[in-house]
Amino acid sequence: MRILGVDPGSRLTGYGCIDLMGRQLSLVTHGTLRLSNTSGKAVIPLEDRLLSIFHGLTEVILKFQPKVMVVERVFFAKNAVSALKLGQARGVVVLSGKVHSLQIVEYSPTQVKQAVVGHGHADKEQVAKMVQLLVGQQKFSTYDASDGLALAICHAQMARLGIMQGVQVHAKRKRMSMAEAVGANRIAANPGIKKDRST
Amino acid sequence: MRILGVDPGSRLTGYGCIDLMGRQLSLVTHGTLRLSNTSGKAVIPLEDRLLSIFHGLTEVILKFQPKVMVVERVFFAKNAVSALKLGQARGVVVLSGKVHSLQIVEYSPTQVKQAVVGHGHADKEQVAKMVQLLVGQQKFSTYDASDGLALAICHAQMARLGIMQGVQVHAKRKRMSMAEAVGANRIAANPGIKKDRST
Repeated sequence: MRILGVDPGSRLTGYGCIDLMGRQLSLVTHGTLRLSNTSGKAVIPLEDRLLSIFHGLTEVILKFQPKVMVVERVFFAKNAVSALKLGQARGVVVLSGKVHSLQIVEYSPTQVKQAVVGHGHADKEQVAKMVQLLVGQQKFSTYDASDGLALAICHAQMARLGIMQGVQVHAKRKRMSMAEAVGANRIAANPGIKKDRST
Repeated sequence: MRILGVDPGSRLTGYGCIDLMGRQLSLVTHGTLRLSNTSGKAVIPLEDRLLSIFHGLTEVILKFQPKVMVVERVFFAKNAVSALKLGQARGVVVLSGKVHSLQIVEYSPTQVKQAVVGHGHADKEQVAKMVQLLVGQQKFSTYDASDGLALAICHAQMARLGIMQGVQVHAKRKRMSMAEAVGANRIAANPGIKKDRST
């Protein structure tokens, strides 16, 4: 199963693509779409940036032929203006996947950090480090690229652990939170990964 | 000049298209894209609704060949969740226009109401009534359709009055607000339209 994770933003949109073959993860590609001048203010109109996201992701999808697109589920933003901007970029990202018949999957930021790092409070650097442990040493253009990969890895973890249903049953039986159950399963499936103190 | 106004929403997206020939407005079409079950909860996933917006607007654009797309500029929303939903629909609307090389133009809700009704506090019913005075009696499927037409009419008004630059100079000279200046210009250009008490 080839999985594309995308971290949408109106200035930087990161993506990462992996293959899940049996229980093995392997890296396909990762990168960042730079949509505005990185120095100083964004002078490129939002509509042009949205078109760049669409064209950029279309190129990635046609080249690497993923079957699933994973996008972060977002519930909050600094304010309405940033929520609207993020929403517009996210809408175009999701559309890019749908236009090419990709299955769209969403996970919350906490689920992604749980699945990749083992706890829901990891910062971007910790996520990037853990992603590299899983797919090999990388030079990420931005944290958006490593976050994109983390989304793809999260879905792979969920898929290979037979989540979500399995975890829900497990959590219920053991009276664990979903987060704890995901973390426990992740560690059981990756004995090489040290148990994080917070799990 | 053929102008398409679009009022984006994740459940209902309205559109209206007009021709501006010299100083004359004429109706081309209007309608509503229904993206979810209107009865009860929306059971259609958001990604499918975004694809429907893209396909629906693409069909309208290819059929009627507008040159300009007008979309409301939004600054606020009830909460982050609704801002994100609206943002996603809006992003796909704008992209639909950009993909077909339409010029994208934005006006604030106040500017639209000013240009169409004459004051910035009009409700949707007043806007729909005024739109009908300008393009003839219509049966609108939803207020989203009449709001779409209002956006297109707003741009036509702005274009034929030589706005925005002219209004800015006018407002500065007369020490009027932009809203007052737009209203004053609109009434000067449409002597048949009664001056609203709030302008």
